[in-house]
Amino acid sequence: MSARIQAVKLEAPNYVGKEEVPESLLRPGIDDPNSMRGKFERMIRGIQDQVCAAIEEVDGCNFRQDAWTRPSGGGGITRVLQEGNVWEKAGVAVSVVYGSMPAESYRVAVGRDIPFEQDDRVPFFAAGISSVMHPWNPHCPTMHFNYRYFETEDWKGIPGQWWFGGGTDITPSYVNEEDMRHFHGTYKAVCDRHDPAWYNKMKLACDDYFLIPHRGETRGMGGIFFDDLNDRDKDKIFAFSTDCAQNIVESYVPIIKKHKTDPYSERQKQWQQIRRGRYVEFNLVYDRGTIFGLKTGGRIESILMSLPLTASWRYDHQVDPQGPEQKFLNCVRNARAQSWVSRAQGRRSLVVTAAKKPAQGGKRRLDATGYIVDNSERGNIFAVEPKQLYTSSPTSDRAARQGLGGVQGLAVLAAAGAIVAAVTLGIAKNPADTLQGLAASGAADSLTAIADRISSSL
Amino acid sequence: MSARIQAVKLEAPNYVGKEEVPESLLRPGIDDPNSMRGKFERMIRGIQDQVCAAIEEVDGCNFRQDAWTRPSGGGGITRVLQEGNVWEKAGVAVSVVYGSMPAESYRVAVGRDIPFEQDDRVPFFAAGISSVMHPWNPHCPTMHFNYRYFETEDWKGIPGQWWFGGGTDITPSYVNEEDMRHFHGTYKAVCDRHDPAWYNKMKLACDDYFLIPHRGETRGMGGIFFDDLNDRDKDKIFAFSTDCAQNIVESYVPIIKKHKTDPYSERQKQWQQIRRGRYVEFNLVYDRGTIFGLKTGGRIESILMSLPLTASWRYDHQVDPQGPEQKFLNCVRNARAQSWVSRAQGRRSLVVTAAKKPAQGGKRRLDATGYIVDNSERGNIFAVEPKQLYTSSPTSDRAARQGLGGVQGLAVLAAAGAIVAAVTLGIAKNPADTLQGLAASGAADSLTAIADRISSSL
Repeated sequence: MSARIQAVKLEAPNYVGKEEVPESLLRPGIDDPNSMRGKFERMIRGIQDQVCAAIEEVDGCNFRQDAWTRPSGGGGITRVLQEGNVWEKAGVAVSVVYGSMPAESYRVAVGRDIPFEQDDRVPFFAAGISSVMHPWNPHCPTMHFNYRYFETEDWKGIPGQWWFGGGTDITPSYVNEEDMRHFHGTYKAVCDRHDPAWYNKMKLACDDYFLIPHRGETRGMGGIFFDDLNDRDKDKIFAFSTDCAQNIVESYVPIIKKHKTDPYSERQKQWQQIRRGRYVEFNLVYDRGTIFGLKTGGRIESILMSLPLTASWRYDHQVDPQGPEQKFLNCVRNARAQSWVSRAQGRRSLVVTAAKKPAQGGKRRLDATGYIVDNSERGNIFAVEPKQLYTSSPTSDRAARQGLGGVQGLAVLAAAGAIVAAVTLGIAKNPADTLQGLAASGAADSLTAIADRISSSL
Repeated sequence: MSARIQAVKLEAPNYVGKEEVPESLLRPGIDDPNSMRGKFERMIRGIQDQVCAAIEEVDGCNFRQDAWTRPSGGGGITRVLQEGNVWEKAGVAVSVVYGSMPAESYRVAVGRDIPFEQDDRVPFFAAGISSVMHPWNPHCPTMHFNYRYFETEDWKGIPGQWWFGGGTDITPSYVNEEDMRHFHGTYKAVCDRHDPAWYNKMKLACDDYFLIPHRGETRGMGGIFFDDLNDRDKDKIFAFSTDCAQNIVESYVPIIKKHKTDPYSERQKQWQQIRRGRYVEFNLVYDRGTIFGLKTGGRIESILMSLPLTASWRYDHQVDPQGPEQKFLNCVRNARAQSWVSRAQGRRSLVVTAAKKPAQGGKRRLDATGYIVDNSERGNIFAVEPKQLYTSSPTSDRAARQGLGGVQGLAVLAAAGAIVAAVTLGIAKNPADTLQGLAASGAADSLTAIADRISSSL
């Protein structure tokens, strides 16, 4: 643990040491507790309490808590329940961070031609909650959620910008149509309360994001996913994010209660382990927050909190073409075509419509991502709790799509509005190590850059 | 299975259907069986037989074989033993492929300013053997090896070029100094027979390649690793590669025989599972062949043959600071400083010298990698059995180091001499899917590209 990071590590169960966690992670005397910063922090910390309490009630075991603060402002609280009665691993983490982003990233994100100096940096604030829960029973699905808020401060006479992002998605090992109707139905109802167009749009965005391209299948059975949301009044989007977060327990816990004592066979457990292997493949190979966190020297335990306790890779595993494993594969190989809820929610069963084949990878392949730099004035990159905080921008997407070439293009891609506050929160090694970690990522980068360039040159 | 790929799938044990595998994977009537192509193919197929026979003898179970051919030439043979008595998963794969590489890649690889047209392609040949073996017993180490040969044909009056690459490395869960002295000693003896400078050089190259930067530790306890070897007579390097390959069994199997019935505790098994998780992290996040294979639409089962049957991720796992797990961590966190063999081989015990801290990532972070395109004239990218065939080039390394900017720099990085025949051998999906897979890799690419660019701009 470096001197930069003040970490409070609490090993005892059930939030012992709770009194050591500050009432607020905002900057005392600087951030207005009644601003969106304050409201969002209170919301996610309330959700952390709510979700952890619901999980503990079902599981019978307690979360342990690791809390940390950063001297330059902000901090986080990670709660993990490992080897419980129902869950093999469940984690819920919140973080609140401050920093400054390069002006060019900002300019691209905002989509306006703002003049700036080479070294200009724009102050930002980011807060988020992130969670993954892996149960033991193969009839109980894994669930993941993430809600985040990002804003910049006023800069050069331009008012601060802001975006919301988030989503909740479910990853079962078997298709249980009733469960999926319940989960998707819950989120359709949430969306419909705010914008009737949102559920369909966000369901497809989720299918696209969680695609594992090399498998030609999604990680799970989706849910909702949104990014860069800033198309209406800030309070309205906050209300939507809050509504989403407040329905996590309702969307998930009844499914667990229903199945937690279901009997299962060795074959079913093995199949779950293989699907857990796919979960690892998605997170380590494609997930934006995870990759960025790993390559920028984040706190590894927080970044990889999302990985299951156990996973398996079985060479050329074949399933019974008539069996439930094949039915599952049919779903994840045609995620976009699955409609889990009808307009009259709750009355439609599994329907694989003849929807046109999705453009695999969808938006993701065009997403550009950015980065944040902390405000300790050490010029050090950091990432925040993985998957917790990031956003991308339609403007940078357009830039990527139009294929700006050369340094400019790469800089746009690299800097692009996207602010990947991919995770860490220190407890990081020293800044030199962090930079070394970044540099060391070069090999894989060039390799993947190749694949990228090849595709465009053919 | 697409129409392009003729796959022969043999499910029965012990090479049943062996008669369906061609005597040679060379192009009949075109490739000279007495050339290096022919000699190398015979060598690796002999090694495949030798290693599989030795493993079967110890395990008592048999490998199953999947063989495939490509209509445009070449093919491969994958052998996997899963859930045996001693190994949870062991795989040995050979492949032989032909194709053409973009002239620019070739130019950079060769390091000469050869004039070429935009669409020029240089024909190449590549062959390799690759293997990973994961035993059940935590006192039995995992072992990986890979030997490969790459050549181009004469082109524009310039004689064909060639490179050898390869290595054998070991990944135990505990430090057994005698075992490590045996393993490293075997390879030191092999190296010393060919060039007394090689062992030290190749041992350090191995430590550098298998570094997991985000953990600050190596995947295992090294061995030897060489790339782009073409600094002397071709037959001399072939003799060295052959000597290395012929000592795989001797370097590894005695260690397994010694420990396969060792008793072990639940704690030791759990620790092995955690180390298996690290193995997965290295292979999915950093291994050049694996990443390239995944992102270019290779045969997933062959690419991920290297992953263990079982692995575990435990949140913030702590080890006894006085215990054998900590001793292991001390080794993998200071891999370059470990000297397993003294000049008087076999007499030196574990010594952690005060070697200066390694430049983490070493050569790898500067490596540039390239690509190959198959010669079916479909303009389709393919990769070959993962980790089996690739090479990089000192010239492209220099280019990367000098930091050519913009499109030029990226093109150099992307195209660079390096020919990553990262693996596949078809049984790939259709060409459209393959291209989609490539395109879909854009997201992670831009993310890692960011980390790369960030590091150079700070």
